[in-house]
Amino acid sequence: MSSPRASLSGFPELLPDQHIVEQHVVDTLRHTFELHGFAGIETRAVEPLDQLLRKGETSNEVYVLRRLQAEAGEADAGMGLHFDLTVPFARYVLDNAGKLEFPFRRYQIQKAWRGERPQEGRFREFTQADIDVVDRDELPFHFDVEVARVMAEGIAALGDLLPPMRLRVNNRKLIEGFYRGIGAPDPSRVITIIDKLDKLPAQAVADLLIEEGGLTDAQAKQCLQLAEIEAADVGFADQVRSLAVTDPLLETGIDELVSVVEGCASVNSDRFQVVASLSLARGLDYYTGTVFEIYMDGFENLKSVGGGGRYDALASDGKTSYPGVGISFGVSRTLLPLIGRGLLRGSRSVPSAVLVALADEESRDTSNAVAQRLRANGVAAEVAAAPQRFGKQIRYAERRGIPFVWFPGAEGAADQVKDIRSGDQVEADPGSWTPPGDDLRPAVLKEDP
Amino acid sequence: MSSPRASLSGFPELLPDQHIVEQHVVDTLRHTFELHGFAGIETRAVEPLDQLLRKGETSNEVYVLRRLQAEAGEADAGMGLHFDLTVPFARYVLDNAGKLEFPFRRYQIQKAWRGERPQEGRFREFTQADIDVVDRDELPFHFDVEVARVMAEGIAALGDLLPPMRLRVNNRKLIEGFYRGIGAPDPSRVITIIDKLDKLPAQAVADLLIEEGGLTDAQAKQCLQLAEIEAADVGFADQVRSLAVTDPLLETGIDELVSVVEGCASVNSDRFQVVASLSLARGLDYYTGTVFEIYMDGFENLKSVGGGGRYDALASDGKTSYPGVGISFGVSRTLLPLIGRGLLRGSRSVPSAVLVALADEESRDTSNAVAQRLRANGVAAEVAAAPQRFGKQIRYAERRGIPFVWFPGAEGAADQVKDIRSGDQVEADPGSWTPPGDDLRPAVLKEDP
Repeated sequence: MSSPRASLSGFPELLPDQHIVEQHVVDTLRHTFELHGFAGIETRAVEPLDQLLRKGETSNEVYVLRRLQAEAGEADAGMGLHFDLTVPFARYVLDNAGKLEFPFRRYQIQKAWRGERPQEGRFREFTQADIDVVDRDELPFHFDVEVARVMAEGIAALGDLLPPMRLRVNNRKLIEGFYRGIGAPDPSRVITIIDKLDKLPAQAVADLLIEEGGLTDAQAKQCLQLAEIEAADVGFADQVRSLAVTDPLLETGIDELVSVVEGCASVNSDRFQVVASLSLARGLDYYTGTVFEIYMDGFENLKSVGGGGRYDALASDGKTSYPGVGISFGVSRTLLPLIGRGLLRGSRSVPSAVLVALADEESRDTSNAVAQRLRANGVAAEVAAAPQRFGKQIRYAERRGIPFVWFPGAEGAADQVKDIRSGDQVEADPGSWTPPGDDLRPAVLKEDP
Repeated sequence: MSSPRASLSGFPELLPDQHIVEQHVVDTLRHTFELHGFAGIETRAVEPLDQLLRKGETSNEVYVLRRLQAEAGEADAGMGLHFDLTVPFARYVLDNAGKLEFPFRRYQIQKAWRGERPQEGRFREFTQADIDVVDRDELPFHFDVEVARVMAEGIAALGDLLPPMRLRVNNRKLIEGFYRGIGAPDPSRVITIIDKLDKLPAQAVADLLIEEGGLTDAQAKQCLQLAEIEAADVGFADQVRSLAVTDPLLETGIDELVSVVEGCASVNSDRFQVVASLSLARGLDYYTGTVFEIYMDGFENLKSVGGGGRYDALASDGKTSYPGVGISFGVSRTLLPLIGRGLLRGSRSVPSAVLVALADEESRDTSNAVAQRLRANGVAAEVAAAPQRFGKQIRYAERRGIPFVWFPGAEGAADQVKDIRSGDQVEADPGSWTPPGDDLRPAVLKEDP
């Protein structure tokens, strides 16, 4: 019922042993999020277009839906595929405000779609893992620390599968207060210009600060000095204060950023660091305090693989405002470049730890019964598809990466199980045998680049 | 950034305590599928339109995509959202034929979309859980038994959460052979007419068999007699043979159906039955042997909540043909009517088993440390959002269904944990305490209708 097609650019698909990598990462993140009390939800894939178009920047990337056989005069369905999980979450909170308990911690691991030009790390369909906390009217600051901590733990729980990762943190109050403190006429304009530091050389940014930001040479220099500050500990605060700018909002921002960096300190390792990065601005204008971006060492070309921050009004229905803070981790963004380069893969292409051999077609019931006893102990098992020579059955297992082949004993003889990697073969009882822990489930294997 | 919207008809969304139900069902199915060696994959949400339109019946239900800001002259993206998981799987097999090991067992749990009129059990966005086995050139019959068995075990593993379920099975060879045996001029036309038995009274179907199927009165009567046969054991075979029709294809079909019913016998219980249903035809013409449908007692208005069968050519690239056999379980179709009527819900709205109380804001680090020690033992915990009176903190836990509240000991005193349902409060150490097994994770609660 299907004939071959070229694969669609920007819509990546994984082979079974690659899917194991993504599944492992998603399961690990979910486990961490749930340990911290975050409730899982899913939102529908579509949103009304007027919702999706409120974020001007991405309007040209939305996929609009229409029914193929729309009736005469029927317009587009007025819906598009969501391009992130934040817009749908905000809408979900408003739709269900009367039924949710606030503060509401949620995680959401789902696909999103953007019609942009595909390139490495940029896909038209991709999976994100988001955590957010939202409250009614007011959201205490300690939740900024909490979401940073939870995402940091989630990523750290992946151990050394990923390259060293950094969660860069900054605070809008800090930088806005600083720009105000130096006398910038329009601090939010300065934020927009400073945000270009990852694309333009420092001198070009300084020129823009002067020409478009209305700053003096000296003020522009101060802004660049602030942006140069980066520290994996609270030492950043002294560096900021050494610039001798004073402003109450700046002080609040410093205190908040210190809290986030301190709150995550115990998660830091040589594989994962939370870093105060004072150049981090995030262009979008709805962030009002903490801002985050996630980076993967050696993959700077991808820019950030995640990000987020504090919104004082994640959602509002006119009467009530719902402030939120959250971080999104780009699952596809992070993993697909690693999987694509062969740096991560599953140890086998099937869940089975055991292939039960089949002596002849008449023995299928016997082999099935052995497999059922193994499964009853939580050991994934499959029975050989055909009663080929045992050598062929072993190669069948080998090609799938199945570590053990089970030989049911003939005529009262004991069963035997063979580790096909070592060739060791021992007697075993399917009612009690289990493989070594590492072999029970497919593992994720990492190759050095 | 978002204002309230009426929810979109046909795009259901769940509250957190409802999502727990769906997650539990998906996790249970996945666990069963993996124990049997089925590999998980996901396919992209979109397929080229020409692929989607090959199944004529559903062409008017496809959602077509277009980029909102398509460039001048740019047509529709030529893609639509998939309406099932079979068409994408067939295409995936062809795309990756050189990289897959055959026979290939896969499960796929994903959303699909149809632009049809929403009604109970019929959604525009819905989740399905599919298992299929596909092979190159030839697929041994025992896989028909296997997929029936695996899906039966998956559903049976849900215990009594669902109403009693039936997996109805029939065989195209059996009925086609029977119709040939009685001398029907066009057996496949008879199949199409018999398929209407779930919509039309028997007499109306008999009339159609005579008028459109070209049968005599006596032949039409025999067809209806066959369709009346239904049995939860292999007794159906004698009933068919008592109709005294002989045909070699009929005999093959009887043997195959006996094998499926026998192979699933040990899964049968008062909650779940595999039933040979000789009226089951499934209209689609690509089924060539075994056919399945899943029914939920008391929800006959939904018709089937799943189905599938054997395709002799699931996919073909012109040179090689890929026969398959599979079953799809409608996760949304089954669960949403139950959840919507309040028959199933999660025991709490958050994963947390413990709320760690907060004496005052200065104690937040202490309470956080307790929560971290609990999490290190796999116990999901959250810290109270604000240092309210303890009575208020207990009600905070109650509203979310969190069963335990933890009180860190002040000044060297031991910590205490309170079961807020019984009121029992005991001393406990966060490094070793775990809740009773039933309380560790949210459970799924069932209300009698």
